[in-house]
Amino acid sequence: MFKIAVIPGDGIGKEVMEATINVLDALNLDFEYTYGDAGDECLEKTGTALPKETLDLIKNSDACLFGAAGETAADVIVKIRQEMKMFANLRPVKSYPNTNSLFKDVDFMIVRENTEGMYIADEEKETEEGAIARRIITRKAEERIIRYAFEYAKANNRKKVTAVHKANVLKKTDGLFKEIFYEVAEEYPDIESEDFYVDATAMYLITNPQSFEVIVTTNLFGDILSDEGAGLVGSLGLIPSANIGEEGALFEPVHGSAPDIAGEKKANPTAMLLSAVMMLRHLNLTDEADKLDAAILKVLDEGKYLTGDLGGSSNTFEMAEAIKNNL
Amino acid sequence: MFKIAVIPGDGIGKEVMEATINVLDALNLDFEYTYGDAGDECLEKTGTALPKETLDLIKNSDACLFGAAGETAADVIVKIRQEMKMFANLRPVKSYPNTNSLFKDVDFMIVRENTEGMYIADEEKETEEGAIARRIITRKAEERIIRYAFEYAKANNRKKVTAVHKANVLKKTDGLFKEIFYEVAEEYPDIESEDFYVDATAMYLITNPQSFEVIVTTNLFGDILSDEGAGLVGSLGLIPSANIGEEGALFEPVHGSAPDIAGEKKANPTAMLLSAVMMLRHLNLTDEADKLDAAILKVLDEGKYLTGDLGGSSNTFEMAEAIKNNL
Ligand SMILES: CC(C)[C@H](C(=O)O)[C@@H](O)C(=O)O
Ligand SMILES: CC(C)[C@H](C(=O)O)[C@@H](O)C(=O)O
Repeated sequence: MFKIAVIPGDGIGKEVMEATINVLDALNLDFEYTYGDAGDECLEKTGTALPKETLDLIKNSDACLFGAAGETAADVIVKIRQEMKMFANLRPVKSYPNTNSLFKDVDFMIVRENTEGMYIADEEKETEEGAIARRIITRKAEERIIRYAFEYAKANNRKKVTAVHKANVLKKTDGLFKEIFYEVAEEYPDIESEDFYVDATAMYLITNPQSFEVIVTTNLFGDILSDEGAGLVGSLGLIPSANIGEEGALFEPVHGSAPDIAGEKKANPTAMLLSAVMMLRHLNLTDEADKLDAAILKVLDEGKYLTGDLGGSSNTFEMAEAIKNNL
Repeated sequence: MFKIAVIPGDGIGKEVMEATINVLDALNLDFEYTYGDAGDECLEKTGTALPKETLDLIKNSDACLFGAAGETAADVIVKIRQEMKMFANLRPVKSYPNTNSLFKDVDFMIVRENTEGMYIADEEKETEEGAIARRIITRKAEERIIRYAFEYAKANNRKKVTAVHKANVLKKTDGLFKEIFYEVAEEYPDIESEDFYVDATAMYLITNPQSFEVIVTTNLFGDILSDEGAGLVGSLGLIPSANIGEEGALFEPVHGSAPDIAGEKKANPTAMLLSAVMMLRHLNLTDEADKLDAAILKVLDEGKYLTGDLGGSSNTFEMAEAIKNNL
């Protein structure tokens, strides 16, 4: 039996979560779901966007499914990542059939460092005249994420890892990142290694996206490049993510709470469902993960039950139901 | 008479510069060109990548045409920008016919702050264990660049300015940037204003690039988004840029020295020629700017004399010659 923390959050987070739990139910998993609160509505109700009980719930679960938070997203999700030491943020960028993907054969994994960089919230408002933010790069955290990327490549039969940085300008911080990257790369002689500047990478993602297999990068660059990846494959509604740490793991769509369409059942449930697939794999429920993954692909491939963002006319629950029927 | 500093630099910088000066010659401009050295070869020859004479040359000129620098690019170009207080970096992203542009009607201007942010090179290697970089955002510099963006919009009949930041995470630095943006926006009631997170923008540039008119952002975000823009319109070989300051102005292609094709006359001269167009406009040589701009467009439109990156078989000088013949 696995204990699963379920945090729907705000806006479309609730809809895609409900649809996803519906589908998971059909897999007859030995899951005990416990629901927790976080986000804008929670702030309004309880005075805090991330109550201690919610953090404790995540801590005491085997995995967490997270929907989306609204305006408070940064306070909720960045805090969870840091408190739970979820150091690896995995964001697969993959083109699916019947989507607006610009390319047919894109399939790479972004491995984003999730605990430091510009996300340490170490800022000072000097005077009225200016402010300073600090970007921290430590050997410990970067070595861990780089090794994670190579291990991921090894386990998933990927042939290349690409490090992304701006070491020509950030000579000490990203210089260190690049140095560590090639140190770790030596331990994996069978996997090709290369490095690019973040600006060049932002271009190559468009001009040569098929060349990427695994990208490893620091926190903010991973944030930017994964949204660019979402654009590349046509919709944020298709990109799941995993936040993996020593004390817990959380799975969430890369999209936000989309207040403009919240409650209208228009949201694409795919990213949340693919996040559930990542969770199943994380819990070593490989057969179930494969089954759900195949059902999602089938429904996309058939193109009969698609949400509006994919040019279809099904609602969130109809698309999820179609996936359920294909399990 | 205008004094023009010409710095070809390294690699393809030399070829595209030679081709560009050839074309400019046909415009019968009252220009006095003085050549200066900078970059990798200069470092090898003189022991410094940016000699004081070169900086002085730029200072004593009305404008500078810059080709590209190799490995030393950061030391050369970032230093020139800072020493000369070239606070505005203008990077037009525009789709041209007969290119690999993903879209037909993209046409926006990125106005990148060019003096601070992560580019202040204020880093410390703490211990072996880590390093810190500082990101500085001052009211003075950001207000200046934001006002520049609105003035640009006004002068060029653009209807909207978009601010790009990460104020949900960088609450103090980018919070300040966003605050200043809306303060300045109030002075321009006829121009629409909006703001997005940098990650979302990286996606929108692909999913909705036609919606952008003028983007204003901090230094590193501008660096990343402009290369993404280059990918969008199909080639770095098409993106020029202007670095504008109180004490001088420098015009350079966004591409680098491309050592892999250097000396082979394969480089696309368009970005360098479009940089020259920006220089002509800056010097108020509007007729000449329009003429050169039209000739470049004509050659792209006809599609007979294109370099390899655009699927043609002309070399750098043949394409430039065709442009010259269309003046
Ligand atoms: C909500 C925000 C703080 C977050 C981030 O920047 O990490 C989001 O953009 C993401 O990518 O998960
Ligand atoms: C060479 C490098 C330092 C430079 C930058 O990052 O500004 C380049 O990428 C650019 O965009 O002009």
